[in-house]
Formats: sequence, C-alpha cells, structure tokens
Amino acid sequence: VAAPPPAALPLGFAPPRAPEAAPSAEPGDWPLGRPLAQLLDTYILAEAPDGALILVDQHAAHERLTHEALRAQLVEGGVRAQPLLLPAVVELPQADCARLLGFAEALARLGLELEGFGPGAVLVRALPALLGPADPAPLLRDLAEELAESDEALALERRLDAAVARLACHGSVRAGRRLNGAEMAALLRQMEATPRAATCSHGRPTFLRLGVAELEKLFGRR
Amino acid sequence: VAAPPPAALPLGFAPPRAPEAAPSAEPGDWPLGRPLAQLLDTYILAEAPDGALILVDQHAAHERLTHEALRAQLVEGGVRAQPLLLPAVVELPQADCARLLGFAEALARLGLELEGFGPGAVLVRALPALLGPADPAPLLRDLAEELAESDEALALERRLDAAVARLACHGSVRAGRRLNGAEMAALLRQMEATPRAATCSHGRPTFLRLGVAELEKLFGRR
Repeated sequence: VAAPPPAALPLGFAPPRAPEAAPSAEPGDWPLGRPLAQLLDTYILAEAPDGALILVDQHAAHERLTHEALRAQLVEGGVRAQPLLLPAVVELPQADCARLLGFAEALARLGLELEGFGPGAVLVRALPALLGPADPAPLLRDLAEELAESDEALALERRLDAAVARLACHGSVRAGRRLNGAEMAALLRQMEATPRAATCSHGRPTFLRLGVAELEKLFGRR
Repeated sequence: VAAPPPAALPLGFAPPRAPEAAPSAEPGDWPLGRPLAQLLDTYILAEAPDGALILVDQHAAHERLTHEALRAQLVEGGVRAQPLLLPAVVELPQADCARLLGFAEALARLGLELEGFGPGAVLVRALPALLGPADPAPLLRDLAEELAESDEALALERRLDAAVARLACHGSVRAGRRLNGAEMAALLRQMEATPRAATCSHGRPTFLRLGVAELEKLFGRR
C-alpha cells in the first residue's frame, strides 16, 4: 500500500520559500559555487566564485531545506498533506499508538493524518506532501519516540518543531545516493535561498569551505 | 625559432621509469584513486579506494615526475637531447654566458647543448627531450642563477642535481592549465609509479589526503 508519488522536483527538493529569496541567475553571485563532483555518493564538491573548495554534506543540507520548508508551511497555517490512495496500516506498541493518537490534531497540522486501528495499529490517511513517497512505518516510530522523549511540560509549539525536525530527516536525500550535476546544482542553489542553511537540524555543519589561501598554505605555496 | 614538438605523451608526462614500476591495472589498487574533477585549473580532486578525498597540486606533482625521469636518464648515461631544427639565440648578461659555457660539458649531459655566440649571447642547439617544446630563454636564465648560487666548492654531481630540479620545474605542467579526465588519471598513475612522488623538488607536498573519518569528524558525524 504505497502513496502515489507527488509531482516531484529533482529528488523532491523543496522550492525556495519566497520569490524574493530566489537564487541569483549569475554564477558569480553563487556563494556555494558550481558543482564539480560527488564524493562517496555522500559529499558534493563545488568551486566557489573566489576559488574556494566547498564540501557539502548532502543529507545534512537537504534535511535543513526540508525542515525550513515544512516550518514555513506550518507557520502559514499547516503543512500540506498528500492523501494516500489507500490508507496504510502501521503496527506499533500500544503505548506509541496512544501517544500518537493523543497528538492527532497537532500531527494533522504537520500533514500527517492518523486514525486508531485497534489497540496495536494506526491507520495513516495522509503524509506531508513535501516528503514525497515516504515509508510511513519508520516515520511513525520515530515520531512516537520524539513525542515520548519530549518533556511533558514542553509547549505544543516546541514539540511540533522537534517533530518537524524528525520529519525533515525522513524526507531528505540520504548519504549514499548518487546525484547528477543538475541535482547537485539544485541543492546548492536552494541552500543559498534558505535561512539557517549552514547547519542541519541537529546543529551540524552542512558545508565546509577550504579557501584558496588555506589550500596554498596546505601545499606550502605560501 | 622553436623546437619541433617531440612525440608527446599527454602533457609530456614522463613514462613510468621501469616496467616493474608500472601502475597496477586494478583501480582498487590505486592509492591516489580515480580523478573526480579539477579545481581552479590547479588542483586535481580524486577519490581514493578507501573513500578519502585526494587533493593533488598538479604543478608540484608533475615537477617531481619530470625531475625523477631526468635523474634516471642522467644516471643511465645522460639526458636525451632533442636537437632544435634551428638553433636559438638567447641573450644574457656576459657573466651568465661565461658561467653557462664553463659548464657546457656538464650541461650537455643534461641534454642542453650550448655554444658561445659573442660576449652577450648563447646559441642553444638542443634541449632535454623530456621538456617538450620549452622556451630556452627563461630556462637558461634560471640555470645561470642556479649555477651562480651554488657553492663554488659544491661537487659537480650536486650542482647537476640542483640544475635538474630547475629543468624539471620548466618542463612541468603549470598551475592554471585545464586538464581532462585522461590527463588527470595519467598524472595520478604516474605519481604512483614514481619514487619520492609525495613531495615536489622543493620539498613541498604534491598531494593531500582527507580521510573518510576525518571528513566525518569535520561534519560532526562522529
């Protein structure tokens, strides 16, 4: 029982949030530069306009893009949901089912529509459209864990934000996926148009810069 | 008055010194890996079999290859010379002319055939074949400088080795030259088959390795 694939941008990359944040058409203005190659199907190597070598962690970067796009939709009134053609049944420990259903209304604002399905299962009617054709089972397990971990006293807003970070992780291109030149360029341009794109949802860097002077120093050229 | 181009390997790369030093045919055995891209027309980026990112300074690396090939020919009885179709006249300060001509016999063993041409010029009849169609003027100026700098008491052998290092620098692919994939691969394979290839003639590193664990640490993945 799979969701129909939504109309997809390359890899399901989120579009830039707002027209005014659209990337410049001039390559010379692209701080993250032009893609050169992919390393280990995990890192993108790019050459910045000033000659610096840029290394991008593709999963961390895409996680941040998905996170910001989900957050923007949430702020604008709710994450767009993609109804499943056939609802999916996900079996879970009884406590997790109860916990998820207790948050059903909040989760619906995240584009995740759930119903009870007996004591040890949940029926999934819709998933956040941004995630593309995601597998609902690991996603629900992860969300149940997140909601269990959250301090009971934590405001719903904070819990939702933590849940958004978990969703973003599921909706992001994995390390180990081969990208072509256009996909790499799309990721770089969207990073430039996205706030907080220098770190992933967990606070790790999404890209590193090795400047020309630094390179020359490493090679003893100066 | 230019020398005819010698039958050239890509970029005039020196062939491996001996058959037993030929690079392995198995990509898995290539420590410097497969070329990914060129940065700034100056550095080669490659992916090692263990996933490390390899950065090669193309000029430094090629300088070492040329240096070792010239040294091998010198040890075997003399550097192969490429006669110029038309001898070249190079004007130099009188002291430099005298110094170069004083070493004419030794320079001939380096593939450089010179004759006097009045007080302020030298006639070049042949250049080291390995250097390809090099411009003789900057090469002679550089050699005159090297011979002037050398301690007078220094043995001829040591002076020749210093001169070989200068020649190698002239015969090497420059930073700022675009290389295609085959040229990059040829350089990497020849580095693997050449002694002392990890440093250039001036003792600077020719390549750097950024290992998988190091990359993961930089990105906070471990």
